[in-house]
Amino acid sequence: MNKFMDQDFLLSTETARHLFHDYAENMPVLDYHCHISPQEIAEDRQFDNISQVWLGGDHYKWRLMRANGVPEAYITGDAPDREKFQKYAETMEKCIGNPVYIWTHLELQRFFGYHGALNSRTAEEVWNLCNEKLRDPAFSVRNLIRMSNVTLICTTDDPIDDLKWHKFIKEDPTFDVQVLPAWRPDKTTNIEKPEWVEYIGKLAAAADDEIHCFGCIKRAIRKRLEFFVANGASVSDHGLDYVVYEPATEDEVNDIVKRRLAGETLTAKEVAQYKTAFMLFLGREYHRLNWVMQLHYSCRRNNNSAMFAKLGPDTGYDAVSDFGPVDQTAMFLDDLASTGELPKTILYSLNGADNNKLVSLMGCFQNDEAIGKMQHGSAWWFNDTLPGMRDQMTTLANGGVFGNFIGMLTDSRSFLSYPRHELFRRLACQMIGEWVENGQYPDDEEALKEIVQGISYNNAVRYFGFNL
Amino acid sequence: MNKFMDQDFLLSTETARHLFHDYAENMPVLDYHCHISPQEIAEDRQFDNISQVWLGGDHYKWRLMRANGVPEAYITGDAPDREKFQKYAETMEKCIGNPVYIWTHLELQRFFGYHGALNSRTAEEVWNLCNEKLRDPAFSVRNLIRMSNVTLICTTDDPIDDLKWHKFIKEDPTFDVQVLPAWRPDKTTNIEKPEWVEYIGKLAAAADDEIHCFGCIKRAIRKRLEFFVANGASVSDHGLDYVVYEPATEDEVNDIVKRRLAGETLTAKEVAQYKTAFMLFLGREYHRLNWVMQLHYSCRRNNNSAMFAKLGPDTGYDAVSDFGPVDQTAMFLDDLASTGELPKTILYSLNGADNNKLVSLMGCFQNDEAIGKMQHGSAWWFNDTLPGMRDQMTTLANGGVFGNFIGMLTDSRSFLSYPRHELFRRLACQMIGEWVENGQYPDDEEALKEIVQGISYNNAVRYFGFNL
Amino acid sequence: MNKFMDQDFLLSTETARHLFHDYAENMPVLDYHCHISPQEIAEDRQFDNISQVWLGGDHYKWRLMRANGVPEAYITGDAPDREKFQKYAETMEKCIGNPVYIWTHLELQRFFGYHGALNSRTAEEVWNLCNEKLRDPAFSVRNLIRMSNVTLICTTDDPIDDLKWHKFIKEDPTFDVQVLPAWRPDKTTNIEKPEWVEYIGKLAAAADDEIHCFGCIKRAIRKRLEFFVANGASVSDHGLDYVVYEPATEDEVNDIVKRRLAGETLTAKEVAQYKTAFMLFLGREYHRLNWVMQLHYSCRRNNNSAMFAKLGPDTGYDAVSDFGPVDQTAMFLDDLASTGELPKTILYSLNGADNNKLVSLMGCFQNDEAIGKMQHGSAWWFNDTLPGMRDQMTTLANGGVFGNFIGMLTDSRSFLSYPRHELFRRLACQMIGEWVENGQYPDDEEALKEIVQGISYNNAVRYFGFNL
Repeated sequence: MNKFMDQDFLLSTETARHLFHDYAENMPVLDYHCHISPQEIAEDRQFDNISQVWLGGDHYKWRLMRANGVPEAYITGDAPDREKFQKYAETMEKCIGNPVYIWTHLELQRFFGYHGALNSRTAEEVWNLCNEKLRDPAFSVRNLIRMSNVTLICTTDDPIDDLKWHKFIKEDPTFDVQVLPAWRPDKTTNIEKPEWVEYIGKLAAAADDEIHCFGCIKRAIRKRLEFFVANGASVSDHGLDYVVYEPATEDEVNDIVKRRLAGETLTAKEVAQYKTAFMLFLGREYHRLNWVMQLHYSCRRNNNSAMFAKLGPDTGYDAVSDFGPVDQTAMFLDDLASTGELPKTILYSLNGADNNKLVSLMGCFQNDEAIGKMQHGSAWWFNDTLPGMRDQMTTLANGGVFGNFIGMLTDSRSFLSYPRHELFRRLACQMIGEWVENGQYPDDEEALKEIVQGISYNNAVRYFGFNL
Repeated sequence: MNKFMDQDFLLSTETARHLFHDYAENMPVLDYHCHISPQEIAEDRQFDNISQVWLGGDHYKWRLMRANGVPEAYITGDAPDREKFQKYAETMEKCIGNPVYIWTHLELQRFFGYHGALNSRTAEEVWNLCNEKLRDPAFSVRNLIRMSNVTLICTTDDPIDDLKWHKFIKEDPTFDVQVLPAWRPDKTTNIEKPEWVEYIGKLAAAADDEIHCFGCIKRAIRKRLEFFVANGASVSDHGLDYVVYEPATEDEVNDIVKRRLAGETLTAKEVAQYKTAFMLFLGREYHRLNWVMQLHYSCRRNNNSAMFAKLGPDTGYDAVSDFGPVDQTAMFLDDLASTGELPKTILYSLNGADNNKLVSLMGCFQNDEAIGKMQHGSAWWFNDTLPGMRDQMTTLANGGVFGNFIGMLTDSRSFLSYPRHELFRRLACQMIGEWVENGQYPDDEEALKEIVQGISYNNAVRYFGFNL
Repeated sequence: MNKFMDQDFLLSTETARHLFHDYAENMPVLDYHCHISPQEIAEDRQFDNISQVWLGGDHYKWRLMRANGVPEAYITGDAPDREKFQKYAETMEKCIGNPVYIWTHLELQRFFGYHGALNSRTAEEVWNLCNEKLRDPAFSVRNLIRMSNVTLICTTDDPIDDLKWHKFIKEDPTFDVQVLPAWRPDKTTNIEKPEWVEYIGKLAAAADDEIHCFGCIKRAIRKRLEFFVANGASVSDHGLDYVVYEPATEDEVNDIVKRRLAGETLTAKEVAQYKTAFMLFLGREYHRLNWVMQLHYSCRRNNNSAMFAKLGPDTGYDAVSDFGPVDQTAMFLDDLASTGELPKTILYSLNGADNNKLVSLMGCFQNDEAIGKMQHGSAWWFNDTLPGMRDQMTTLANGGVFGNFIGMLTDSRSFLSYPRHELFRRLACQMIGEWVENGQYPDDEEALKEIVQGISYNNAVRYFGFNL
């Protein structure tokens, strides 16, 4: 039996242990997609206690507590932090097999040096230990990032953002981790939302322009893209219900935009037509700028309307959707490719049953514009589990060139989540070890080193073209 | 190599063997969902021979025989029982990897003490051995249940059932296993069926009432619910094509009911509207009564119309459907939750590809009304296989709190099927053992014991609130 | 650690090694479905170099090279063969976990005796070794087939084909491998294609008949079927978007055909009606002739329109589709079964997530017309991977009678692809070994031998009824 999460955790073969410890473990972390706050990095925030870090905004943990019958007061309510932590510890005890259990203990080990198990009996000890450390300046946000050997972080930012915190960080000579903005224009995309018209007004202001047509939106967006480029951005991200393809003429889209700006409600088809036109426009812009386009989709959000009314979005009430037609994804990509304007693209599937479809589809759009131009993103959200990651990597290896995979991202709101890169690397090394040990790939030191270091870090650096 | 299905079957690690033999093996069986006949328990039926028990009504076995090219005469026809048994034995020989192969041999071992393999050469010996025992009063239906350490059985019963056999059993002091009715109102739900109007007449009679409107149906159903409560019921079950959500006003539904009672044929939309309204009504009733709502769906039934004409339903001609939109399931649950009236719910998916979607969706409706209020049901029917159960438990563990899982049910028509609980426990202990032995969860005796005994029995007792 | 692809490759248990080496390895190969050229067999083609064999038409390999950023000139363009080979070798190095990596090395071992790994450093050595051998008459097409212990090959042929090469081969006493035509009438099926009307003219000519109605098409097809029968055919194959079921009257279909022949464009519904009628007609013909009906579906073809314009179909731009409703497949099969005219049928799913649905559906149509009448085809195309094959066999074993499985086919355009049968057998023996070694099936020498040899070869001989 292996000891609980020791140094060889998940590494069951000699080859896996060698690859991880000698090649993967010490590679830096490039976190090309996350949701942490640049302001907190700029201000180098310090946390009061472990409940604040862990339970302040992590809906993964909230869901587990609810599934354990914990009253909402101890989750998002005003129960004391110490009591919340107790409820969390009690919940953990029952979460055998859950990735949050692993993340929790990886974080306790790597940041706080605690190698025991968190449960109802150890909660007090862990609480005291963590809080004492958290109050130490060595545990400020910047130091947590430094501790994690991170070289570059892409945050998630709205086109109208002034990026002042990014500028602040860049100009601060005491912090040499690159913190770059990533472009997330969902609010411009979601024309069906009530707040869209008001938002377009803000976009106009940010672009120092007026918006009364589709062409105006594109002009404003182009200005903001240039502003993001000037601040080091080269990555976009989109949260879509699904990849829509409902083509329309420029005039039709213009008419849709004008009517919507005048306060009209659009039909579902008109919404799809606008979104298609806007996404095609952006895809071409990304290609022109040599940016990477990230598409996240197949999520059904805010399923519990009573709790949405109380807590708002991103509070643990989202689920995997089953609507994401390959047909429309295929036609969207083909429209861009037909004029040679398909940018480097990462497609993330939330529904593991889509993996093989997406990997096979992306194989239709690979070309020599980049090595591994089309990437199947690392297992996301509800798939970000050991079996989910294994399935994503297995599908990719069997349907594509595994050695070109750009690997892991945290997609997290927490400064303690970098060990997820370690977990990913352990599993990747274990899988590579299995392929080598079962005789499916030769024990070729040179080739394996390149594959492991590529997937851990080097491939992403090359793919995004970051200056590292 | 392990011996054929010996005492350590499926238990490949020290931890798995310890957990199964010391904690799981001797826990009682709570069979909260099955299709056995209360009359046969009441009358303490005795079987003539093993073909009668095994091949009398088990369409799982019939399908395998057909796939082996066996003529129908030896399956549902009038060939002699001994010859049917021979054909079954010949079929088994080729069924490597099939759960029916395992069930067959578990039953031969546990009930008849036969530890060999059933095949064309051993059929005669097995036939004689089993039949001799079956004729012994020690092998009556009640004794088979006693032998299996069962404490409680929920049968499946129509709202108009008089439950006389349940009463009979309850009043019989010589049998102390609880045999409770479970409420299955599919005939009231399926308004599109030709026999619906006639059935509603029977429902009216059973409720000693008249039915000429939707309100009348609800009133009659409420009376029958109270009758079921008085007879110890606290569990419902629904067999749905899919979880439908097509809301309508009370007046619209009333109009639909009236026109249908007058003999009209309804549109698909009207059918969906009635079903939605009826299911929402029932959901709220279940919540009021603190019952558990079981939803089984995604089955495409009676696919072979020629054989349906000959043999009727439940004869081996059903399949996994691919229509079961998460959207409607989500809106149905949300409608109930929006007024705080969502009952404890178990969702069973027939399509393994739905597991992750359902587990993620159910996570949106957990709260402190119960520990593990929303349950993803154990792998059902075509998924009730070793890989199917492993996938269900893996998905649940990765997306929820595995320690709160209420575990196995037989869903069977046979009195010999209780060893499926044993098989489930072996696999659960094996999986828990894997998590512990690979270092993913600590070797914490106390916590593991609670998890194992919980999943085997205790969680279900607590969840359903049975008096045990 | 196992050596790289040695004699015990994939065989991790004693049982697996015994079953493979003693029972599976030396069974002949029956390749009942492939796309190789009968002309090349007839003319006993000789290849100039390994690039010609490997990269001349294999879009699996092309896709990987594109995913590695290789310019098209080195893939389908006019770069020198030696340079193409170098690019391929460089790509292979990164393809850890990919089946093409395994196929490549199996072919290097079995045909060329090269047991090293192909990569950028060994490319020159491999190039020289292979080309020297390929120029030897011992490496002619016929000798490659003989070397592979093949007894029978079914090619893929259009109904209008004159089958002259098949006749030529049959009459040649120096080659005793049966090379039979297989009937692939997609061009008659695809009424929506622009070239359909012209094709129907050719069909009329081939049948020495006139075609101006649906009845005429059926009459012409019947003549061609008889011609194929006379040339030894007993297998059909269909490449469908999905299994369509949109029934119409004979008059309606006749009207559709007449309007289409007159140059009209049809609605989607009319296309579906024609296809349904035509496929039902063919199904009944196959049943009358005791042929096997193969249905391949769920592929979305030619996704990259710019590359399609340059390279045409079958060049690496296809993907897994997600549209293949079980409903229509079920109704299509039931229509044929309702009159007792459903032929032996093999259903191939491209989407692994469909496996359980298809296996359960096919179980509804098994009967005593054949042992294993309804077959779930071996993992196809994007599923033809180690995990894909494992999943297909696992699903089949759990939902049907594994011992009746007809096993592997190459579905390949290459004369070097026969080792895929070896790979399949290794995996099948490994899986059977796992079931035996974990105690799920007894170590019954006689039964296991029959299962292994059946799946390797004997079941297919019996199922198709070939004269072998």
